Amino acid sequence: MWIEGTLKLESNPEAYAYPLLIKRILESAPRYAPDQAIYMGKDKVCSYKELPSRVASLCDSLSKKGLKPSDRIGVMDWDSHRYLDLFFAVPCLGSVLHTINVRLSASQIVWTINHAQDRFLFVHPDFLPLIESSLDSLESVERVFVYGAQGERSNHPKLAYFEYEELIDSGSEKTVLADFDEDSVATLFYTTGTTGDPKAVYFTHRQLVLHTMALSQAIGCYDDNRIFSSNDVYMPLTPMFHVHAWGIPYVATLLGAKQVYPGRYEPSLILDLIESHQVTFSHCVPAILQMILNHPKSEKMDLGHWKVVIGGSAFSPGLAKAAMQKGIDAYSGYGMSETCPVLSLTHLSFEERELPLDEQVDIRVRAGVPIPFVDLGVVSSGDSNPSTESGASGEVVARTPWLTQNYYLNEEAGNRLWTDGWLHTGDVGEMDGSCLKITDRIKDVIKSGGEWISSVDLERRISRVDGVKDVAVVGVEDVKWGERPVVWYISETPNHDSILDALSKDVKEGTLSKWAIPEIVERVEEIPRTSVGKTDKKRIRQILLERGSQV
Amino acid sequence: MWIEGTLKLESNPEAYAYPLLIKRILESAPRYAPDQAIYMGKDKVCSYKELPSRVASLCDSLSKKGLKPSDRIGVMDWDSHRYLDLFFAVPCLGSVLHTINVRLSASQIVWTINHAQDRFLFVHPDFLPLIESSLDSLESVERVFVYGAQGERSNHPKLAYFEYEELIDSGSEKTVLADFDEDSVATLFYTTGTTGDPKAVYFTHRQLVLHTMALSQAIGCYDDNRIFSSNDVYMPLTPMFHVHAWGIPYVATLLGAKQVYPGRYEPSLILDLIESHQVTFSHCVPAILQMILNHPKSEKMDLGHWKVVIGGSAFSPGLAKAAMQKGIDAYSGYGMSETCPVLSLTHLSFEERELPLDEQVDIRVRAGVPIPFVDLGVVSSGDSNPSTESGASGEVVARTPWLTQNYYLNEEAGNRLWTDGWLHTGDVGEMDGSCLKITDRIKDVIKSGGEWISSVDLERRISRVDGVKDVAVVGVEDVKWGERPVVWYISETPNHDSILDALSKDVKEGTLSKWAIPEIVERVEEIPRTSVGKTDKKRIRQILLERGSQV
Repeated sequence: MWIEGTLKLESNPEAYAYPLLIKRILESAPRYAPDQAIYMGKDKVCSYKELPSRVASLCDSLSKKGLKPSDRIGVMDWDSHRYLDLFFAVPCLGSVLHTINVRLSASQIVWTINHAQDRFLFVHPDFLPLIESSLDSLESVERVFVYGAQGERSNHPKLAYFEYEELIDSGSEKTVLADFDEDSVATLFYTTGTTGDPKAVYFTHRQLVLHTMALSQAIGCYDDNRIFSSNDVYMPLTPMFHVHAWGIPYVATLLGAKQVYPGRYEPSLILDLIESHQVTFSHCVPAILQMILNHPKSEKMDLGHWKVVIGGSAFSPGLAKAAMQKGIDAYSGYGMSETCPVLSLTHLSFEERELPLDEQVDIRVRAGVPIPFVDLGVVSSGDSNPSTESGASGEVVARTPWLTQNYYLNEEAGNRLWTDGWLHTGDVGEMDGSCLKITDRIKDVIKSGGEWISSVDLERRISRVDGVKDVAVVGVEDVKWGERPVVWYISETPNHDSILDALSKDVKEGTLSKWAIPEIVERVEEIPRTSVGKTDKKRIRQILLERGSQV
Repeated sequence: MWIEGTLKLESNPEAYAYPLLIKRILESAPRYAPDQAIYMGKDKVCSYKELPSRVASLCDSLSKKGLKPSDRIGVMDWDSHRYLDLFFAVPCLGSVLHTINVRLSASQIVWTINHAQDRFLFVHPDFLPLIESSLDSLESVERVFVYGAQGERSNHPKLAYFEYEELIDSGSEKTVLADFDEDSVATLFYTTGTTGDPKAVYFTHRQLVLHTMALSQAIGCYDDNRIFSSNDVYMPLTPMFHVHAWGIPYVATLLGAKQVYPGRYEPSLILDLIESHQVTFSHCVPAILQMILNHPKSEKMDLGHWKVVIGGSAFSPGLAKAAMQKGIDAYSGYGMSETCPVLSLTHLSFEERELPLDEQVDIRVRAGVPIPFVDLGVVSSGDSNPSTESGASGEVVARTPWLTQNYYLNEEAGNRLWTDGWLHTGDVGEMDGSCLKITDRIKDVIKSGGEWISSVDLERRISRVDGVKDVAVVGVEDVKWGERPVVWYISETPNHDSILDALSKDVKEGTLSKWAIPEIVERVEEIPRTSVGKTDKKRIRQILLERGSQV
């Protein structure tokens, strides 16, 4: 309901309206923590006192290279201080940062660069071969800046090589960052659905500032549940191309926390960095946490000071328990590319932190409680009014100040995303008190004989079986029932029987429908992942289809 | 510098733009702290689970009484849960809350009600005599609602008596709070300058939401300096009519912290409430802190868990030391009616907390470090570019997302407030690192023989002299020197000589100019205060003028 007739008064002509611009995030840390620093691996890059000057210099250098407001700059890089600088400098010029998903296929990357109409690219040498071989297909790109003046060089006229620090040094640190409309687009990136071309979401300065403000407040101001605050040591383990590394680099900069960028993810290096910098806060998809826990080095390490927020895929109770047994303080975060991303986070009271491990795991693997300024509920099909009542279930819908307001140049997809004034997540969820549990992706729900079986629920149960290291459940076509579940799991020894025993026990106890017991339970070497580390159920279904699997 | 040409994209027609409205502040506490509660004195009023329904009911009741968007409602009340409810309900209807300064004279109160064109008044019975005697002068007021159905009643047709809880009960808790433009005015109130009529500042929904977000983050997310977070127990000791009690009731509600409202300030009751509720966080002007410390009851009390932010007037080192010797964790906040109000707060590092008391006092009495999203500097006269360099001094100017954009119906005063795109505070300050020290009000600077003497600096020095309980320094006209300082102090025994000795010592040590030594040092019974508890220097100058004081 929107009403008119409220009192609006004319501002004094000299009054400053203060647009919410990303440059403002840079202002606090030099006051509160001037000597705290940002590291690339083991090396110190700069202190917070120096960061605003570096960003100003970089802005000046980019301007001199011809970057103008509304230009798109594509970036292909690992998690680095360079990326952090560009998180600020590109939007501060009124330009748009296109964070390219480097895990896409070459043809998809080219497609996204052309669709975004990137004018410049900033490319880590690791991605140069890919870009070099595609240069003639990159229609809009005028120039590709390659970090690192070393190594063999192609002399294609679009390629320019430079040392990153020289780029900084060549600009004036006195450059004044301009003001402009806070609704200007700051970032843009592509999300790959299960069908069709990638779709681009985009976020404005206002949205990113508000996400930063609300998120920092959500994770710092509630005593029972302080996940990240100024004296933490932060290292992202979510790629910076993936929804701004969940927006946490902006939060860390606002807080003036020590930041450590790990470059390309190598489990051994990551563990070294956690140890040498005494990293206390990270976030990642379950697969990365699994990779770290599986690494022999981690066995001897004390990870008791490490807080980790898991998101991107369902956090299985098995993995959560393994992490907590290592002393890791593990949380879930829920959101998606379309939501900037954070919608909800695990919220544990002091009392809940005293519960036995298994009960804590149950709380910690849920999507969590909506953070401040997130309005979130579930809608049953056919209903347009979301419910927040405990026990309600349906598709999760949201309203917050930081949701993509459309897909870039894709009106049709935008119409599916936004219905009845709510962003539709495509996730099926259930409210338990104020806490959201995601039960499945709408498209991953297995429809069997009129019953709905949650693939995520089955995965959660199976992940708790001893020996199971990873698990994926998908629905495959079935002549009689419509669909039936197929289980893939990873384990050192076969666990077929113990999985079925565990599920049968749940059926006897009445917590699982008997229709959910799968006929096919397969031990596999590998579970396919998408470019951002999620279980690639589309690929699993495809493999099963090609193999002619029918239950 | 404002630039155009940035990328702005069209939103999907169904996308929800999420205006920043005050109603959103109510949403988090029921999720995070549903059972935490709000108290009026010793009595529990409601839990956070219940608060949104109470506000919705109140909105419905107010609508039924005819309140419409843009209507002004004037409130005359002590700090109470009723006031908190109205902080939300009136703006949530798109109406404007006029928080009437009940300490103004009757004629000034009438003037402000007429100037604001209040349509309704909500009045505590304590203020009924004043309103009753002025009813015929209140031109715009249609109806005066008086809390409390008891007592003698006048039968003036404009007066309506009711029990507050009945007002809540008569509305539907299912009332949906509407959306509207975030730039709609939410609150309005008057500030009394030293000359002329009171001037009204006003704040929009957007401004109050952003002030709440940034302030909660500033006081909760920086580990060295956590002043207020969710498990604190909050009791305001700044009147709610005075700049929204510094905006902290909104912060407390967002955090889901326990709130205790003290009603009319009675030192004995305040001390009882601090003890019985174990209050951990308050804010007040120096005079209230002084009043509490002077109360015999406080001598026996342990105040070691109490954090207090002092603002509104300069926090003297003497008072700060006395408070800290009682175990109170004392801070300064800086701001004014025009700034919503918070601009800066004491920021102490862990190391600084270990300093000897006197050195800590020096840090704690300064205006402090600008909070996030506050851009603040000092300008020398004739210069329009503010400086933030350490050592710079001049008039303090600011830009933040929460500054009044004008004075209501007073363009001329608005032009003095906003110059060169900066809000001019009228305070003279000096930067020391990132920390702001207020050296004086521009109008209170004493201009003596071409030298500027800071009255606030003199007060700080004199406050440290043993026995001095309170002090005020003003400039009086002097034929030879232009102006000369006069000192008024409160003490149980005369301290004239020790004051002059202390200042002479400072002159010898080179920290004070010899011109600053006052000729007149008077012990007085009382120092006049303004309606909001500040030292009333205008009144002191007037008394001295009437007495014919000339140095």
